[in-house]
Amino acid sequence: MTFLGVFRNLVIGVVLASPVYADPLPSWNNREAKASIISFVERVTDPSSEDYVPPKARIAAFDNDGTLWAEQPMYFQLIYALDRLKEKAEADPEMLTSPALRAGAQGDTRGVLASGEEGLLEIFAVSHAGVTVDEFQRDVMAWLASARHPQTGLPYDEMLYQPMLELLRYLRDEGFATWIVSGGGIHFIRAFAADAYQIPPHQVVGSRASVSYREDTQQLIKEPGIEFIDDKAGKPVAIDLHIGAKPIFIAGNSDGDFQMLDYGDSGNGPFFGLIVHHTDGEREFAYDREGPVGTLRRGLDEGPQRGWVIVDMAEDWRRIWPASKP
Amino acid sequence: MTFLGVFRNLVIGVVLASPVYADPLPSWNNREAKASIISFVERVTDPSSEDYVPPKARIAAFDNDGTLWAEQPMYFQLIYALDRLKEKAEADPEMLTSPALRAGAQGDTRGVLASGEEGLLEIFAVSHAGVTVDEFQRDVMAWLASARHPQTGLPYDEMLYQPMLELLRYLRDEGFATWIVSGGGIHFIRAFAADAYQIPPHQVVGSRASVSYREDTQQLIKEPGIEFIDDKAGKPVAIDLHIGAKPIFIAGNSDGDFQMLDYGDSGNGPFFGLIVHHTDGEREFAYDREGPVGTLRRGLDEGPQRGWVIVDMAEDWRRIWPASKP
Repeated sequence: MTFLGVFRNLVIGVVLASPVYADPLPSWNNREAKASIISFVERVTDPSSEDYVPPKARIAAFDNDGTLWAEQPMYFQLIYALDRLKEKAEADPEMLTSPALRAGAQGDTRGVLASGEEGLLEIFAVSHAGVTVDEFQRDVMAWLASARHPQTGLPYDEMLYQPMLELLRYLRDEGFATWIVSGGGIHFIRAFAADAYQIPPHQVVGSRASVSYREDTQQLIKEPGIEFIDDKAGKPVAIDLHIGAKPIFIAGNSDGDFQMLDYGDSGNGPFFGLIVHHTDGEREFAYDREGPVGTLRRGLDEGPQRGWVIVDMAEDWRRIWPASKP
Repeated sequence: MTFLGVFRNLVIGVVLASPVYADPLPSWNNREAKASIISFVERVTDPSSEDYVPPKARIAAFDNDGTLWAEQPMYFQLIYALDRLKEKAEADPEMLTSPALRAGAQGDTRGVLASGEEGLLEIFAVSHAGVTVDEFQRDVMAWLASARHPQTGLPYDEMLYQPMLELLRYLRDEGFATWIVSGGGIHFIRAFAADAYQIPPHQVVGSRASVSYREDTQQLIKEPGIEFIDDKAGKPVAIDLHIGAKPIFIAGNSDGDFQMLDYGDSGNGPFFGLIVHHTDGEREFAYDREGPVGTLRRGLDEGPQRGWVIVDMAEDWRRIWPASKP
């Protein structure tokens, strides 16, 4: 082959292999949200741009419930807790010593939510405490393998949002570290995050119970009671604790994410704030200002004037669930 | 050049450039400790070895005080706190409202240590609380730039152990993630760890005060009081919280590191435990079983039978401080 022939084939090979020429977000419709994301990523990764950010500072933080996977009719972690409570109560009805536990065992979610924080802690203690971290995570994986969502019939860990999976991958391809900063339990999410999102355990931040180290068995035990709630003003605090640097890209869906968006947006450098707005009652669930799960008011009212992008699920997303699913 | 000439130069180039043929630990004398480290790393990185560990599970955790940098005559973070206390007391003597604060301002370290935990908390509150995380870390960096060690005259962040810097780099070159798991303050260590150790903030784990997020200023404030002490049984707990996986290589120097070594050593897979034994009173400081800082008894008594390598600083290390220093 001539030199020019080799050169031409090299150029064609580079062009075809280059991710620049592939659509990094194929499940996003060609609307403003998608264009804004791509424009932001191109600006912060272009060394000649004023907004260039070096790779080590390319940190992205994502809420989980309602942002990366679904959260209706209630947080999946609470469904897990109630499933385990029911099983244990069938074997030992005597254990139902409080109204919250009785409501939970009957699947009376309204009664559970009415029992307040104390009731929820009782329910979580049954499924989440008194076991090692390893045992707990194996049990979560076993539950995910068998449990099915009451409306879609899907395994819970297949109710991930395909467009957000593409966004995670796109950001990582562009040198970002992708973190989860969730109100959900840190051990619960870590049990499936590596498989579901390709996010390793240390990049999963969440609410947590106390853990103790037992020297006699060399094991880490999950204790009853909540030590930290990674929600609202807790999210910037947890970002400081686990990441130690301010993310330049933050995605959430509820007002529990407001403070981390606010914190991320407090510097002088480039920042991208994203709020997933659940507008699609046909393919997913439509909810925002009302209801006990994923309430979104302040983000809708203040987000646009802060420059945060509100993603309209019905309009912006070509598909909801991963491609292998319906 | 002939084809063979090109080929020969390529081979020589590859051999010379290859880290396999360079000594990865030049400041370690050719003794058992060095040989054990290299043998372990070769086993866990060789895909044909029974002990092979995939890169994502190659996690190494290092204590800081007495393991990566010096800790005598007392923890450098306490020297920082006392320096700042003295400055503030000179400007405002009225602030010395307790015996601990008065002892601290006079440099009476024995009096400070005698004041117990409550006294230490009072002293730390003066220098560590009521400021933003950013302000605190800028102040730590300013202190490191001007303060000098009373005996060596070196800046504190040059009293790093050159052999341990080589070990960190060697492990990273072999695909390990290197973490710090220290009894020292997480914000204090993060202020210099990226420069000193090439360890990013999220891989620094330490003791911590409460932090709060102030929405009016969008800032993270360090509050008075200690929220978590990352020492003894706290270290495995902090490893679970921040790393979420069990390190296969753990290095410490005091009995504050015993439980994390014990935890790391609790699995069936390969594990390397390392204890730095301060035996070199001429080049550094000689101490172990007695004294308030870096006490090491259990590690010396139980470490060898657990298979942990006790590094004899006087014998195992060719030099102590980094090459640019005396």
